[in-house]
Amino acid sequence: MGSIIAIVMGSKSDWPVMEHASRTLDELGVAHEVRVLSAHRSPQAVAQYAGSAEERGIEVIIAAAGGAAHLAGVIAAHTVLPVLGIPMETRLSGGLDSLLSTVQMPAGIPVGTLAIGRAGAVNGALLAANIAGAAHPELREAVRRYRDAQTRAVLEITDPREG
Amino acid sequence: MGSIIAIVMGSKSDWPVMEHASRTLDELGVAHEVRVLSAHRSPQAVAQYAGSAEERGIEVIIAAAGGAAHLAGVIAAHTVLPVLGIPMETRLSGGLDSLLSTVQMPAGIPVGTLAIGRAGAVNGALLAANIAGAAHPELREAVRRYRDAQTRAVLEITDPREG
Amino acid sequence: MGSIIAIVMGSKSDWPVMEHASRTLDELGVAHEVRVLSAHRSPQAVAQYAGSAEERGIEVIIAAAGGAAHLAGVIAAHTVLPVLGIPMETRLSGGLDSLLSTVQMPAGIPVGTLAIGRAGAVNGALLAANIAGAAHPELREAVRRYRDAQTRAVLEITDPREG
Amino acid sequence: MGSIIAIVMGSKSDWPVMEHASRTLDELGVAHEVRVLSAHRSPQAVAQYAGSAEERGIEVIIAAAGGAAHLAGVIAAHTVLPVLGIPMETRLSGGLDSLLSTVQMPAGIPVGTLAIGRAGAVNGALLAANIAGAAHPELREAVRRYRDAQTRAVLEITDPREG
Amino acid sequence: MGSIIAIVMGSKSDWPVMEHASRTLDELGVAHEVRVLSAHRSPQAVAQYAGSAEERGIEVIIAAAGGAAHLAGVIAAHTVLPVLGIPMETRLSGGLDSLLSTVQMPAGIPVGTLAIGRAGAVNGALLAANIAGAAHPELREAVRRYRDAQTRAVLEITDPREG
Amino acid sequence: MGSIIAIVMGSKSDWPVMEHASRTLDELGVAHEVRVLSAHRSPQAVAQYAGSAEERGIEVIIAAAGGAAHLAGVIAAHTVLPVLGIPMETRLSGGLDSLLSTVQMPAGIPVGTLAIGRAGAVNGALLAANIAGAAHPELREAVRRYRDAQTRAVLEITDPREG
Amino acid sequence: MGSIIAIVMGSKSDWPVMEHASRTLDELGVAHEVRVLSAHRSPQAVAQYAGSAEERGIEVIIAAAGGAAHLAGVIAAHTVLPVLGIPMETRLSGGLDSLLSTVQMPAGIPVGTLAIGRAGAVNGALLAANIAGAAHPELREAVRRYRDAQTRAVLEITDPREG
Amino acid sequence: MGSIIAIVMGSKSDWPVMEHASRTLDELGVAHEVRVLSAHRSPQAVAQYAGSAEERGIEVIIAAAGGAAHLAGVIAAHTVLPVLGIPMETRLSGGLDSLLSTVQMPAGIPVGTLAIGRAGAVNGALLAANIAGAAHPELREAVRRYRDAQTRAVLEITDPREG
Repeated sequence: MGSIIAIVMGSKSDWPVMEHASRTLDELGVAHEVRVLSAHRSPQAVAQYAGSAEERGIEVIIAAAGGAAHLAGVIAAHTVLPVLGIPMETRLSGGLDSLLSTVQMPAGIPVGTLAIGRAGAVNGALLAANIAGAAHPELREAVRRYRDAQTRAVLEITDPREG
Repeated sequence: MGSIIAIVMGSKSDWPVMEHASRTLDELGVAHEVRVLSAHRSPQAVAQYAGSAEERGIEVIIAAAGGAAHLAGVIAAHTVLPVLGIPMETRLSGGLDSLLSTVQMPAGIPVGTLAIGRAGAVNGALLAANIAGAAHPELREAVRRYRDAQTRAVLEITDPREG
Repeated sequence: MGSIIAIVMGSKSDWPVMEHASRTLDELGVAHEVRVLSAHRSPQAVAQYAGSAEERGIEVIIAAAGGAAHLAGVIAAHTVLPVLGIPMETRLSGGLDSLLSTVQMPAGIPVGTLAIGRAGAVNGALLAANIAGAAHPELREAVRRYRDAQTRAVLEITDPREG
Repeated sequence: MGSIIAIVMGSKSDWPVMEHASRTLDELGVAHEVRVLSAHRSPQAVAQYAGSAEERGIEVIIAAAGGAAHLAGVIAAHTVLPVLGIPMETRLSGGLDSLLSTVQMPAGIPVGTLAIGRAGAVNGALLAANIAGAAHPELREAVRRYRDAQTRAVLEITDPREG
Repeated sequence: MGSIIAIVMGSKSDWPVMEHASRTLDELGVAHEVRVLSAHRSPQAVAQYAGSAEERGIEVIIAAAGGAAHLAGVIAAHTVLPVLGIPMETRLSGGLDSLLSTVQMPAGIPVGTLAIGRAGAVNGALLAANIAGAAHPELREAVRRYRDAQTRAVLEITDPREG
Repeated sequence: MGSIIAIVMGSKSDWPVMEHASRTLDELGVAHEVRVLSAHRSPQAVAQYAGSAEERGIEVIIAAAGGAAHLAGVIAAHTVLPVLGIPMETRLSGGLDSLLSTVQMPAGIPVGTLAIGRAGAVNGALLAANIAGAAHPELREAVRRYRDAQTRAVLEITDPREG
Repeated sequence: MGSIIAIVMGSKSDWPVMEHASRTLDELGVAHEVRVLSAHRSPQAVAQYAGSAEERGIEVIIAAAGGAAHLAGVIAAHTVLPVLGIPMETRLSGGLDSLLSTVQMPAGIPVGTLAIGRAGAVNGALLAANIAGAAHPELREAVRRYRDAQTRAVLEITDPREG
Repeated sequence: MGSIIAIVMGSKSDWPVMEHASRTLDELGVAHEVRVLSAHRSPQAVAQYAGSAEERGIEVIIAAAGGAAHLAGVIAAHTVLPVLGIPMETRLSGGLDSLLSTVQMPAGIPVGTLAIGRAGAVNGALLAANIAGAAHPELREAVRRYRDAQTRAVLEITDPREG
């Protein structure tokens, strides 16, 4: 199976955070591609990449950007595939600017937005796998196993005074 | 075909906004169910509803709530189905509290969050249809027609001084 | 006397802050239990824990969580015991998101919320002891002694230029 | 039985909001007193009122104020009784200033803070009754009936499309 | 002389605000064109419009958008002409989201951003005229007369108690 | 001449910031006293201190506090002397909570508020000296010399590329 | 006696708010002048007005402005007289922008800042009278009477349920 | 050719950030001058500098300041040249206060505002060169080459997993 999920980020400096999305997809056994693309510095490349994703077999696009975070929105403008946005942390208010730029899309062009930073990266991968899981039942099961394991892990912790 | 998308809201007062999600699904020809469920006042009912959604044939859940907007997160905790959150506008900072409560989920339990209010309601419906579209090709095509029509509509407007 | 106050936190990483609540209860001589429970990763365990707290002799529950901090609200939904919420500090705006998620509960399900972080942990313990003090006069007296000692301590400081 | 709960507010203009606290206590059958006292314009009166509340039989104090909302904190400084703070809505950011002034108390002087405005007023009354319920079992039962009725009410609402 | 300044807005609903930019250019005697173009609904049209502006004789582009306000940034990505951004007021925090989306551009693609709403529309027109004034001395003089008139107008107001 | 200005702070931990106020008064040659007083932990001591300041010869009070920063307001409630408030930096939004708690006083009890942290401490001292300068002409002259020296200092800096 | 206090505002539209400062000074019997002066549109006039205020007998300047509220700071830069700033309410976050622009002055040029809007206008007048009161004992007494009357007024209000 | 662009900053401590503006102009081959000038500590010097810039051959002024960032606005009040503002980062909310003080100018006195900090410094230089490029075609070409190089650089990065 070729890549069915694409992880795109606005700058190579986003990789230490978005690596957690890639690792989560690896854990779930999902083939995926990773690209650095700038909405502002290489707009034609972004348009071409997003416009051709569906015919290349991509089923969900995860896009990460910070500041005036336009990347997810620009990608969503060029495809009908589900697009998930991960706001990157910034020094101005911890990423609130990235979050608002990503989530406040006008009616007609949705971007499903996850939490700022690492938790959002992991959850973007999980939600993408969930979405792809509708057509790939083995993926839905992989997500179910991931969730069950995480519930068991949290239940094993008891009184923090003991350990 | 039974309902494949569920719209859930925390209070009946959210209906004038969420009606736009329901109408958008109607326009796209998607069978869907609508429920009012309170994460805090009827927690068992929410747990049961979310836990049984997958076996009842629901493929995506759209959850709307305001303030300490826990509904989408509580639903996501009880299902592996994709959950989309729509933050309702509030008087305190226009819905920013609802947005943060909905989007800032911990790693492991994703909620794909849309814009605050009406634009989010429309986009939640579109993204849900997009997601269901992977397994229902006619839905993917309906979204494509919707998007094409909206592009044509915006291109017809020219110089606002003339009209 | 068994535990009459419960300290619950959403993640083991909250313990270095919530340890101050536990220590304050120790200083006041209040038997208490401490648990890590995740509103999102182990929702059934939270429901069962909160639902059975009253019959196990717990009189007040102190719940700490960060981000989309749903823990205190979910607990309050499953019990009529007084629930106190301690918002954890986050990188996004220093914990304001945790504070709003904890305090902005809808009418009908109260969560008495304390300050963000360590001051809130200490004060949650003091307020819980105050509340339990209505039925346990020796606790009310312990709080009174604690307050008197703290007033004396602050009055001993005079001109900071001298020391 | 004399008044066991006191509702105090910083200005008579807070009454239309705080009336909901008073009505909720009436519904629960709790005798309570209501006073207007200004932390800044009548500081001695506040100190005297708070300092003598315990010996007059008051068990919980609910204090409402807006802006640089010092009232709850000043009252808490003069008593060991549990003090609950209700932040009033303001034009500057919808009451966020009132919320921060009320909740961000230093370690040692707790104020259990509820939501901004009307929901906070109702919940302050419910939490105060809950707290008093430890020593007055009939009050604990009244709160339980109130909560059960509210759960039943929310479950009666079904599909909002049906009207 | 053909149009040397372009006013572009993301939605026809921005016209009542941006009309003030157009009127200010009329007052200064600057030929300009006005277009409605959506960064998200008609991305190809925006790319083509911005990419061809320089060769059509446009010297400055004023772009207005609200919410996840990407329009000015997308235009700036497709041209080296000076681009000025006018953030539109929104219900979420009065336009702060539009402002941050417009101004927080990454290094390499500048957008000179003006105030939110009407004042920004007027000032965008004035600054555009100022910029074009370098190559069109009569425009620089028109701006100077405009500024002198406004200084005289404000100096005529004296004691507001008298009028 | 005895102390004519008082510097009061809510915690000894505020001294490293408020030391700059004390040093500025020393530079201007103003006799002043410094005290640590807690609005919440020692309310009677604050009331007595503020209430007796005028008769002890104090002409201006500078009060510094952080978080739910009530100290300046409580002091202003007990005296007609001019009270200046210095908000201390906090981890929650850098001191914005302290600023709002200090500045948003209700009509009738003014607190003249300076910038957050060190700049506010220096400026509180300068403004206090300015105010006292009306009755002590040598103080007004000291402030004038301080201001002239600072203007000369800033004019000596030229092109930072030169070193 | 000529005017000893000056009220300056950035726009005639600030008068309905600043009228409350003027009325409060009238109540206290303080002769004052009122001017509209724009920091940006008439900078020379502002410099001249502020620079000559001391020699014309003005003892305190109250300056009101909104948005990028530079007026108080510009005035403070041209005089050693005490300058009090009143931030005007704005649609963007209710005046928080005005507040920060007014209060966050660099070390060396203090502006004593009051609350946003009407409460700030009244308190600016009271604080100005307090400051002038050092050299005009009858003014100090007028302020004392004003404060006593306001304390009596607030103490007359008792239980708001009674009417 | 003499300097055609001026970089002005409110404090020498802004130089490590504004150095990036100077370096960007050096890369583009633009002669420019750099000055430290304080809006508050040396207001006459600022007025004289801004008022004489046009006749000295300056075509665009870039002004950087932090906090109650008045410098760009004060300069814009004294010239019709295009003025660009660079908000400096501050500890209070990461520079949001500087941004609002710089961008929220009243109608009539525009300041084209760039991003907070280093990105804004680079972009201020680029936009200034763009503006001057209208009268200096070689500058327009230098900007075009800079932009092309930056697009090529971003396209060379591919999959970050590869290193």
